[in-house]
Amino acid sequence: MPEITLEYAAKLVGGDAIGDGGRIIRGISSPDDPQDDMLCVVWDKSVLDTIPQSVSIMSGKGTISGRDGIELTHPRASLVKLLPLFDPRRRAASGIHPSAFVDEGSTIGRDCAIGPNCVVSEGAVLGDRVVLQANVFIGENASVGNDTVIEASTAVQDYTEIGAGVIIHSGASIGCDGFGFLPIPGGGWEKIPQIGVVVIEDDVEIGPNCTVDRATFGATRIGRGTKLGACVHVAHNCDIGPDSMMVGFVALGGSVRTGRGFLAGGMTGIADHVKIGGNVTVASRAGVTKDIKDGLTVSGFPAREHAEEKRFQASLRRVRDYDERIKNLEKRAGSAG
Amino acid sequence: MPEITLEYAAKLVGGDAIGDGGRIIRGISSPDDPQDDMLCVVWDKSVLDTIPQSVSIMSGKGTISGRDGIELTHPRASLVKLLPLFDPRRRAASGIHPSAFVDEGSTIGRDCAIGPNCVVSEGAVLGDRVVLQANVFIGENASVGNDTVIEASTAVQDYTEIGAGVIIHSGASIGCDGFGFLPIPGGGWEKIPQIGVVVIEDDVEIGPNCTVDRATFGATRIGRGTKLGACVHVAHNCDIGPDSMMVGFVALGGSVRTGRGFLAGGMTGIADHVKIGGNVTVASRAGVTKDIKDGLTVSGFPAREHAEEKRFQASLRRVRDYDERIKNLEKRAGSAG
Amino acid sequence: MPEITLEYAAKLVGGDAIGDGGRIIRGISSPDDPQDDMLCVVWDKSVLDTIPQSVSIMSGKGTISGRDGIELTHPRASLVKLLPLFDPRRRAASGIHPSAFVDEGSTIGRDCAIGPNCVVSEGAVLGDRVVLQANVFIGENASVGNDTVIEASTAVQDYTEIGAGVIIHSGASIGCDGFGFLPIPGGGWEKIPQIGVVVIEDDVEIGPNCTVDRATFGATRIGRGTKLGACVHVAHNCDIGPDSMMVGFVALGGSVRTGRGFLAGGMTGIADHVKIGGNVTVASRAGVTKDIKDGLTVSGFPAREHAEEKRFQASLRRVRDYDERIKNLEKRAGSAG
Repeated sequence: MPEITLEYAAKLVGGDAIGDGGRIIRGISSPDDPQDDMLCVVWDKSVLDTIPQSVSIMSGKGTISGRDGIELTHPRASLVKLLPLFDPRRRAASGIHPSAFVDEGSTIGRDCAIGPNCVVSEGAVLGDRVVLQANVFIGENASVGNDTVIEASTAVQDYTEIGAGVIIHSGASIGCDGFGFLPIPGGGWEKIPQIGVVVIEDDVEIGPNCTVDRATFGATRIGRGTKLGACVHVAHNCDIGPDSMMVGFVALGGSVRTGRGFLAGGMTGIADHVKIGGNVTVASRAGVTKDIKDGLTVSGFPAREHAEEKRFQASLRRVRDYDERIKNLEKRAGSAG
Repeated sequence: MPEITLEYAAKLVGGDAIGDGGRIIRGISSPDDPQDDMLCVVWDKSVLDTIPQSVSIMSGKGTISGRDGIELTHPRASLVKLLPLFDPRRRAASGIHPSAFVDEGSTIGRDCAIGPNCVVSEGAVLGDRVVLQANVFIGENASVGNDTVIEASTAVQDYTEIGAGVIIHSGASIGCDGFGFLPIPGGGWEKIPQIGVVVIEDDVEIGPNCTVDRATFGATRIGRGTKLGACVHVAHNCDIGPDSMMVGFVALGGSVRTGRGFLAGGMTGIADHVKIGGNVTVASRAGVTKDIKDGLTVSGFPAREHAEEKRFQASLRRVRDYDERIKNLEKRAGSAG
Repeated sequence: MPEITLEYAAKLVGGDAIGDGGRIIRGISSPDDPQDDMLCVVWDKSVLDTIPQSVSIMSGKGTISGRDGIELTHPRASLVKLLPLFDPRRRAASGIHPSAFVDEGSTIGRDCAIGPNCVVSEGAVLGDRVVLQANVFIGENASVGNDTVIEASTAVQDYTEIGAGVIIHSGASIGCDGFGFLPIPGGGWEKIPQIGVVVIEDDVEIGPNCTVDRATFGATRIGRGTKLGACVHVAHNCDIGPDSMMVGFVALGGSVRTGRGFLAGGMTGIADHVKIGGNVTVASRAGVTKDIKDGLTVSGFPAREHAEEKRFQASLRRVRDYDERIKNLEKRAGSAG
């Protein structure tokens, strides 16, 4: 475990050290589980009183008295600078593990780390410093850019194009056939061949057990810098704008297109062929069935503008006593009639 | 890349070549990304004007003028004949890769392709021309029929029975224990042993990261020709009729039975023990809690006949001004009283 | 196939043998598919008449006449004692398969079974009698307790702590980075390092293709005896109480905490930071957005007490004719005005 002083940490995050600047910090803790030898990060002032005075904290300006700590404007954002210091994990050592199979017709860049039981197929091209953790499959003629990390048990199918600085977590399936069939008159389904590819641009992160299907023809594309949570599904021929974020269990139908900065909450679904503008937000569990214009926030199923959906939901909450009130009116109207 | 003439393509799909029949085609493109050296397939006439005249197109009868192309009745259906010509992927070469482990107590048919790091366990039986891509696990006494393809990172558990002509995409887990527990008085759960099997009939296709659980006893069955999208879950003891289709994220509870030609839209759920008739359609995001008769289309949660659900939803849309109207009536009734 | 007598089975489950106690039983069948040489287990009396008299049954007290069988109070619960007798699957033989890679810096307990193409990384510690089926990845410094079974194609990331008697089914991804990013002013996302771990306590069962993310710092914890169905997602820093049960496709946001005996139906979602008391039940497809007190059952989206949600839903069902009734009242009020 690394040890740093409170003063060093304060300098690193650009905050003010309060109290004993020479105090040793051995990790980061949370208000749920404060530890004397760790720095407790607090961004909700209401929990300050629950943390023992013996624990050092990092929190907002003017919030520390009678204890050691660091005050600064954005305690949560500063975590990004502190956390790497205490990450116990090591970067994978470069080299090809003897149990890996790397086809002689593939191309491997410099300083790659290809772990145990990985498979790199004929025609595949890996850039420099690529990490394949273990049991990773790279299909024929797939390409992987510099500094990309692919975790254990992931499958990257033939001809998939993955950019640089990408992270793909365990269990993801990239480039499987899109789900396309024609009904056969009289029953049954004829498979539509899926001959396109998947293109994942630079700096994308793909969560564990995600599925990104290849295009029927052309490409399924995930734009630069976009982040996918766990179990997200991107169907054939989708084109997701850069800097988007889709939380767990988002499911996109075929040929969905989104602009830049698309945000989708957990468990949302988007129907086939929907076109979504730039900077659109879809609230959790929404079901989008129609195109959405730039900049809108939508919710509900079928999804519509969030303000409208809220009014609609509020109108439903008022329904409860209508039955009685209408009956009363009818009684009075009847007796008045 | 293969090259074919427009005339050859027209003959193949049974359409009429318009313009320069000797023109060379090197692929298929879509109206979103038309390419001069590819045939652009158009089934929505409204986009015709957006495609440069220099691009050859395949579209409906009477839709082409002033450019090269193919006219025919069903442009989308004809894709099935054209796409395989341009598929860059190769069929796997037969043979057992030296890094694969094939137990000597297993039986392997003719011309199988068993890729790197695959595992075929004792007692397993593979038919002819089976393809196991890479990192595939076939458990003890499992069987796989002729011409079935199982992609990388898929696990097929012991005693699973897979038919002929099946496709299982990456990351699928077939034959894991069903989810069955008995509550222990006072707290906790006792596992109900799951000793049944999974049976996947001929010509089924199973999407990436699907999960099909083994039966408690007896069999979980997926009928001939049925197609599953990504991340579909079929629980223990389900019996899915032939020629069904379940889109991404459909989740079936235990012992669900469906007739032939069952269609389930994305993210639908079916409760335990529900019986569904033949040719039933469940709309996207529906939650089915009761049995459904032959031929019905249902939607909503709890799901009911689609026409009824639509009337219900429409009735809710009208609620918005009831509050004000009832208040007005009450005011008038009060003043009249 | 094992053979036991009806009398032996009756003694095992503590029931009364009726008819021919020496009758041979070769398996367990269900009322859907009764078999002459198997014991048919019936817990729904209404199907008794559909089972041929030649089939022996196990059912409730006073339900058997004119056939062989076993009567007892809880036919379903007794399955737990009978099913293991007929389980065709074998326990994995201990030993390390030659194709597995076990780092010399790892520690392996006694009588472990490490199957083909498994990977055990440096610093990992396996207890006694651990089973890694095949293609399993155990990351650096991860630990696995005694008698734990991890099925094929599962990835256990670095520093994950897994207890004793745990079962992890195929395709699960345990310990991948939590989904945490800070928005960059002007667009894009900065990754928050995820340096915490996952702790899975004793006797937990994790379904196929589940994803359990590591904590940002500290631990994501799944309490002792808790059971997860297929494709469940547990996000970073969740803390799930012991003896809980989450059915398929449950998705927990970050930092969700639950008490003991938490029950979640299929496809439910819980928002970030929600705190759930002890013995709470969340109905299928609910979306929980607020804290829930001990002992409550909630449903709907946003979820609230089930009784209240039922009243709310019932009030919506009555809306259909309000439009006409209000119009009638308005007409009468108008003519009266």
